[in-house]
Amino acid sequence: MAEAGFSFQVSSTQGQARAGEITTPNGRVATPAFMSVATQATVKGLAPDEVVSLGAEMVLCNAYHLYLRPGVDVVAGMGGLHRFMGWSRPILTDSGGFQAFSMGALRKVDDSGIQFRSHIDGSAHRLSPQVAMDIQRRLGADIIMCLDQCIAFGAPKEQVSQAMERTHRWAAACHQDHLSSGASQRQALFGIVQGGSFADLRDESTGYISGIPFDGYAIGGLAVGESKERMYQVVEQVTGRLPQDKPRYLMGVGSPEDLVEGVARGVDMFDCVLPTRVARNGALFTRQGRVDITKRQFAEQGEPVDQGCDCYTCQNFSAGYLRHLFRAKELLAPRLASIHNLRFIMRLMADMRRAILEGRFQEFRQEFLGSYQPTNEIARQQQKEKWLQARGG
Amino acid sequence: MAEAGFSFQVSSTQGQARAGEITTPNGRVATPAFMSVATQATVKGLAPDEVVSLGAEMVLCNAYHLYLRPGVDVVAGMGGLHRFMGWSRPILTDSGGFQAFSMGALRKVDDSGIQFRSHIDGSAHRLSPQVAMDIQRRLGADIIMCLDQCIAFGAPKEQVSQAMERTHRWAAACHQDHLSSGASQRQALFGIVQGGSFADLRDESTGYISGIPFDGYAIGGLAVGESKERMYQVVEQVTGRLPQDKPRYLMGVGSPEDLVEGVARGVDMFDCVLPTRVARNGALFTRQGRVDITKRQFAEQGEPVDQGCDCYTCQNFSAGYLRHLFRAKELLAPRLASIHNLRFIMRLMADMRRAILEGRFQEFRQEFLGSYQPTNEIARQQQKEKWLQARGG
Repeated sequence: MAEAGFSFQVSSTQGQARAGEITTPNGRVATPAFMSVATQATVKGLAPDEVVSLGAEMVLCNAYHLYLRPGVDVVAGMGGLHRFMGWSRPILTDSGGFQAFSMGALRKVDDSGIQFRSHIDGSAHRLSPQVAMDIQRRLGADIIMCLDQCIAFGAPKEQVSQAMERTHRWAAACHQDHLSSGASQRQALFGIVQGGSFADLRDESTGYISGIPFDGYAIGGLAVGESKERMYQVVEQVTGRLPQDKPRYLMGVGSPEDLVEGVARGVDMFDCVLPTRVARNGALFTRQGRVDITKRQFAEQGEPVDQGCDCYTCQNFSAGYLRHLFRAKELLAPRLASIHNLRFIMRLMADMRRAILEGRFQEFRQEFLGSYQPTNEIARQQQKEKWLQARGG
Repeated sequence: MAEAGFSFQVSSTQGQARAGEITTPNGRVATPAFMSVATQATVKGLAPDEVVSLGAEMVLCNAYHLYLRPGVDVVAGMGGLHRFMGWSRPILTDSGGFQAFSMGALRKVDDSGIQFRSHIDGSAHRLSPQVAMDIQRRLGADIIMCLDQCIAFGAPKEQVSQAMERTHRWAAACHQDHLSSGASQRQALFGIVQGGSFADLRDESTGYISGIPFDGYAIGGLAVGESKERMYQVVEQVTGRLPQDKPRYLMGVGSPEDLVEGVARGVDMFDCVLPTRVARNGALFTRQGRVDITKRQFAEQGEPVDQGCDCYTCQNFSAGYLRHLFRAKELLAPRLASIHNLRFIMRLMADMRRAILEGRFQEFRQEFLGSYQPTNEIARQQQKEKWLQARGG
């Protein structure tokens, strides 16, 4: 456990929802928190000072991608990930297990780890619990993740169970490696609960993983194709059995409605490429739902996309101009759209936190979900995006 | 003439080089000035406040592109180009003649104008002197340009001469239209000297165009394939005959060495896509010449690309990180590179201006050209880039 650098305090709860604060060696993060995804050591199109100005306090980077390119030696040689990418605040790195599973070619998994070939140049690599810890240690994030085994949605229970058991063995190995490395003074290590959509497996996994004194606990393997209802059930089931005094992190989830439902079920941290990925395709969040800025109806709109929004994009540019940039395939288009969507999400997290602290979270939740219209076929969309995420954030 | 809104003052000269100031209804521009190119109403990848922070005081937009997309009605309906693109400082629009010539399909030119089909959707259009003026009037730039006829480099003298004479007739028509429209109170109109690489035609064109009381005079049809030496000769010949009290604008020229040689020959204004175009390909300006940031040698360089540079990129990021962004095809790569190159050019212009004001321009010129190594085959490169410019900035 990272006694010196890492701590977590819950300041207020309402129902299952919690408002708190994570302290790391590189600063504090108010929770519930959404981590912007900086897969390859950059939030796509945005400079670090811009990301800060959106209200982001922590970003997520991907160990798999950075290990392959530019390589851990390069990042470590320049003083670690914070200096490399010009981000002086907290960083969490994902272990790379999900990416090795979803992107690596000729993948083979056994108890010793994951063997795969690079999606960039076909070179052969091996990710074991020890290697995953070593990579993340040298990248130097504030929070690092255990290696876990991911499997495809819809796999038979027997396979889900086997992957879960292997994830448990790897979690113990990662924890052991972390403790013996001495890095636990500088880095926090989170365990990951697996078990698919099977209630009994999720119970078993929650019990096993929470039995190891990790600095925080993640829920993995969701938003991969199951229904929203099932996902919310699993989240509720797992958070109900996780320790109260440690942060809970729902991996790869980040649509506005899922953030609200996740917080309602006691989740403290989220990450997702969805806000920036859909932004790059011209889908912008509003309190009523997503709009497609490339549509004809916006051509002559002199007002911003979202008139109540305080983001740089909405404060400075009309919907008509943004549509023009998208249609002309200008580089500024994905940037302005990403700024808007991330700011929307950051404001949502801050609004939820305030509502919890002020004892009116249930009202906020009802009001938000009453006006926000989720995009159709979200389950299928999420599955697709989860897979696309692995292909490069 | 725009008595109210537009004026030009030369503050200091050294040899042919001039330092001065252009006043427009939307603010002042210190000269010599480089206009960043915002072809489609955006400097590719950069937000307006970023462009300002680089030291840019004026940008160039392209009437041909904006006329086709989003359309003049859309821009005018939102209050004109300044409001549309969020740029409150001076803007110059190019007439669209060069683009109609180089990009339009099935192009036909006669005395009444240029008939062409859109490169976007094949729709039929016609650009006449009156239409070019009307479009630019409605876009609302501070400085607008006469319609001219461009021809391919290497065309026989007879053709160059005919195009020049047509350009003269169109210049007179544009000037007449401008005066009678009443827009001359809000917008300045520049004439364009043509004549290819033929000394006698350039003399004739300079004489004719400077006989019309335009607010400024541009030199068109250069940097299209002729040698550097020839280009410099033509510039010197033309500026030597242009009025002293009006700004001179060398169109489509912007490599560092050409800017220095242009200023030395009495040019006050330049525009070029080169700094941002080569930036997007990873070519970065340094005082020694361009470097290719994607090369292996930069992989582990923890220092910035250009250690003496005060730009946001060099102040915050290593060459190694920038190389990583390029190799990972990240959106931040062209942006950070464009920031660096434009800042390099803006600083060069400011340095030249200061040197002129302090009476040491020749020393500055010698020192700069002594250390700056132009990229090989610049003439061919320029020709290519001039053509590419027309394809979208």
